Amino acid sequence: MESPFSYLQKDDVICALSTAPGTAAIAVIRVSGKDCLALVKTIFKPTVKQTDLAIAGGYTIHHGFIHDGDALIDEVLLSLFKAPHSFTGEDVVEISVHGSPYIQKSLLEILVRKGARMARPGEFTMRAFIKGKYDLSQAEAIADLIASNSSASHDLALQQMRGGYSHKIKELRQQLLDLTALFELELDFSEEDVEFADRKQFKDLLAILKQELEKLIASFSLGNVLKHGIPVAIIGSPNVGKSTLLNAILDEERALVSEIPGTTRDSIEDVLNIQGTSFRFIDTAGLRETLDQVESMGIERTYAMIAQSSIVLYVFDLLTTTYEDLLLITEELEPEVQSKGKHLIFIGNKVDLLVESPHHLRDMLDLEVIFISAKRKENISSILDSLLANVEAGKASDEVIVSNARHFDALQQALIAIDAVAKGLGEGVPTDLVAIDLRTALHQLGLITGTVSSQEVLATIFGRFCIGK
Amino acid sequence: MESPFSYLQKDDVICALSTAPGTAAIAVIRVSGKDCLALVKTIFKPTVKQTDLAIAGGYTIHHGFIHDGDALIDEVLLSLFKAPHSFTGEDVVEISVHGSPYIQKSLLEILVRKGARMARPGEFTMRAFIKGKYDLSQAEAIADLIASNSSASHDLALQQMRGGYSHKIKELRQQLLDLTALFELELDFSEEDVEFADRKQFKDLLAILKQELEKLIASFSLGNVLKHGIPVAIIGSPNVGKSTLLNAILDEERALVSEIPGTTRDSIEDVLNIQGTSFRFIDTAGLRETLDQVESMGIERTYAMIAQSSIVLYVFDLLTTTYEDLLLITEELEPEVQSKGKHLIFIGNKVDLLVESPHHLRDMLDLEVIFISAKRKENISSILDSLLANVEAGKASDEVIVSNARHFDALQQALIAIDAVAKGLGEGVPTDLVAIDLRTALHQLGLITGTVSSQEVLATIFGRFCIGK
Repeated sequence: MESPFSYLQKDDVICALSTAPGTAAIAVIRVSGKDCLALVKTIFKPTVKQTDLAIAGGYTIHHGFIHDGDALIDEVLLSLFKAPHSFTGEDVVEISVHGSPYIQKSLLEILVRKGARMARPGEFTMRAFIKGKYDLSQAEAIADLIASNSSASHDLALQQMRGGYSHKIKELRQQLLDLTALFELELDFSEEDVEFADRKQFKDLLAILKQELEKLIASFSLGNVLKHGIPVAIIGSPNVGKSTLLNAILDEERALVSEIPGTTRDSIEDVLNIQGTSFRFIDTAGLRETLDQVESMGIERTYAMIAQSSIVLYVFDLLTTTYEDLLLITEELEPEVQSKGKHLIFIGNKVDLLVESPHHLRDMLDLEVIFISAKRKENISSILDSLLANVEAGKASDEVIVSNARHFDALQQALIAIDAVAKGLGEGVPTDLVAIDLRTALHQLGLITGTVSSQEVLATIFGRFCIGK
Repeated sequence: MESPFSYLQKDDVICALSTAPGTAAIAVIRVSGKDCLALVKTIFKPTVKQTDLAIAGGYTIHHGFIHDGDALIDEVLLSLFKAPHSFTGEDVVEISVHGSPYIQKSLLEILVRKGARMARPGEFTMRAFIKGKYDLSQAEAIADLIASNSSASHDLALQQMRGGYSHKIKELRQQLLDLTALFELELDFSEEDVEFADRKQFKDLLAILKQELEKLIASFSLGNVLKHGIPVAIIGSPNVGKSTLLNAILDEERALVSEIPGTTRDSIEDVLNIQGTSFRFIDTAGLRETLDQVESMGIERTYAMIAQSSIVLYVFDLLTTTYEDLLLITEELEPEVQSKGKHLIFIGNKVDLLVESPHHLRDMLDLEVIFISAKRKENISSILDSLLANVEAGKASDEVIVSNARHFDALQQALIAIDAVAKGLGEGVPTDLVAIDLRTALHQLGLITGTVSSQEVLATIFGRFCIGK
């Protein structure tokens, strides 16, 4: 029986729409595979009659017409890439057609009729990985790059796509592999009590590895929030104006964003993009659904929101909240917020209804307090500034940051194995037992770059890509 | 004061997203204008260091990176076209980026910051027209091609884009212009009673023009329905199953349509696409809103629907409708339907509830009658076959067909003027009065191909295009 993943090893001709679906000036259909030029030749009539796609050089563009038998389908530009100098490493043709859905569909149908197969999601990138154009973490970064919707997530993905930590991991893994080979050699000579692997060198390498892994693992929490948006919780007693504040914040941002016609705005609701960093407001459904009622947010729900957040906005009513109330709240939130490294910002609402300035509150509390009027949208920009300042403080400059959950998991598993190896060596555990942990560490590190990979894992990873990539 | 249309004459650098907005594998941003290469050079770092866009040949592709100062924006492929061998006739660069909306937007923002201007809708095509790459009717066909959603509308647009009737019109207009020049010369010598323009030749040309114009004008009704879908009305008494039939027809088609993943289906509801021809059901809101009630469609509304349609489906209940009823209906509909060249198809519904076959009805009526069960979806395919047969009969094979309302209008105006000229010549109307009609005819014909055009007309025509084309 053929494996369900047998397509992973094929170089048959695949095709897909690579640009976004819909009506537009142009659309690009990508074709890749061993026989792709021969296939395209059967439907393409070049304007320059003597053009032969088989002979023409790569990185060239050819004007001509797509025909389906006698029927003219479109006037097109055909971009030619020759193996191995193409995205997939195979011969690739990108056909730029007039962007009518009818033409897009017709061309794909013709290609399929002529022997091509509709590409699976991510199949072009998977071929690039299989042909060695990218390692696995780089290939994964391509999907992240496409999905990126902020300067932060974009920079992370680009860094990873261009090598990022995978070069480092490959290098460390190679060193570990070399030592492991020597170490395992000792197993063959176990009765002779020889040591091929230098124990000092071994321990040094393990120490370096441990340090690198810990640094990468630690970076994940920042990487994850940069990728998905920094989670912000808006909490506070009923009726203090939390939902009004949320709307005021989102309105403020929308006013700042300059629109470029023809491009789409990120449609995720309740995500705020300030100077390239995304902030994601948690459980806003809870806030919104109470817009016209008395807001009721149980203590349990509030703590759940805090647990998910990096920044907590505590909204209070300046008219009814005393200095003592705030002290109590600070005390109450301390174990869940500050001591867990989260940022707490107090938002004093309804400043417009006060007779006197409430600035003494800030001095007395020694806390970050911002006074606003959510209803009148006064001083909302101070909240945006504060959100941004909180992130900048945490963002190391040129550090390599892990943002991929799969990598995070592998790094953690590798660290556990490395710790076990170090412990084993220290405690004189038999070489063959230590070797098991070593192999686990090597396996986990190999999973990140794809040096080690199963067809099932590949199918899952690339299955998450968009079609046409 | 600068004219609001002054941009029409400029060759400054314009840019736009040319592929559909949204997240996808790739997106293409088009840049065109006199200084476009110099502008792109400031942000593009080619992988092949010695690449110089100013020297590199057209129809070549260049791999490299887009930078915004120190910040890396994306790894891209840059397609290069040199004036005049490009779509717009100017230097053009198409930048193929990773299809993240963030990258699309960033690149456009950088281009604008570097001195480019966001292109207006259709501005690239308008430049192609101004540079003489296309005449106006060809340029308009590009928008039609992009909007085409059926084989019929696609073929019409392609025919027009490739010259269609505009070559013919240009040729006839030129002949008319030559004769007009001679004719107007007579005005200068009006007291000498000379005839520079051969009256016989003049009348022959007018006759040919008249014939051609009438043929083109007559083709519009077919062209219009091929472009927008052939209008079909479903009428009949209350409760005979009209809405059930509409749903059954649309379901039947959906089952036939093969879907290509990643492409969009035309989202227009109640449009049926059979073998490349679109049928548009009229006033289906009226049908649908009565789905759960007694259908009530006043006689006035019914006649309005018939007036808009090319094909009328008259649905009747086989259980309650007699032969005599049908005769009466045929008689009643005759002045609105058959005598106006519309097709009438009788649909006998609820055939499943009959004990005997109703085929005698068909023989007795000498009409097209299809027996179905809308509820059980029986024999719906016969209706589709019949709809298609009705179109095929009306579709002339290689005829040039006008589908553009603006052209239709100009052709009609030109014909009126030509008729006036012919009449004037026949009746010996003074030369200077005939000359006015001649100039009108020339003007109207010139409007079609754009030989004559005002900036306002151009702005209106291209304003309907999508951005990036």
